[in-house]
Amino acid sequence: MSKSVLELTPVQAVACCSPLTREPLSAETAERVMPLVKAIADPVRLRLLSLVASHADGEACVCDLNDAFDLSQPTISHHLKLLHEAGLLDREKRGVWVYYRVNRSALGDLAALLGGVTT
Amino acid sequence: MSKSVLELTPVQAVACCSPLTREPLSAETAERVMPLVKAIADPVRLRLLSLVASHADGEACVCDLNDAFDLSQPTISHHLKLLHEAGLLDREKRGVWVYYRVNRSALGDLAALLGGVTT
Repeated sequence: MSKSVLELTPVQAVACCSPLTREPLSAETAERVMPLVKAIADPVRLRLLSLVASHADGEACVCDLNDAFDLSQPTISHHLKLLHEAGLLDREKRGVWVYYRVNRSALGDLAALLGGVTT
Repeated sequence: MSKSVLELTPVQAVACCSPLTREPLSAETAERVMPLVKAIADPVRLRLLSLVASHADGEACVCDLNDAFDLSQPTISHHLKLLHEAGLLDREKRGVWVYYRVNRSALGDLAALLGGVTT
């Protein structure tokens, strides 16, 4: 594992490396991809990711997502922020709302890391 | 979501459902797949999964995995047990050792759930 991987974002680190079943994942890479995995290791966040991705035009604001959960808007906004910080959601402020969109590259990289077994 | 999904194992629940980006994941399905996601949301377990998969003949016992970690054998065995309970590792006792093997269907299903964006 070259040292430069340690300086990459989680998304880039996943993208650079072989699927985990082909060769042993290094400790550094495992730590590096953890933010992505931990971000989806929560049922609310996994559903938010799914709701944003499948929303009209592939984007949604917290105002679109409130109704699906029995949670306060600040709580949902907090989970959206965690998904954004992990690199799984991009965001853009328009007017009074922040609109979220799935970072398809990040999610695809994570799937590819796990998906080496099926090829 | 049919009620029967609630009675499936985590692996079956993932396999039955559309990738999360195509349609909103239900609360029930999100809860159902959580054991799989949480099982890999730990750097030691993600590395163990990778080490077992990439080991000779695709299987390994704790005796093969000790050297890769600065952890006690009971701790590694505990992580292997959690991966087994989540459905990601199959296991078989032969002689004094338990041999683990990646459940490729489970890992593939998890990848497919995440991978809908790339197709």
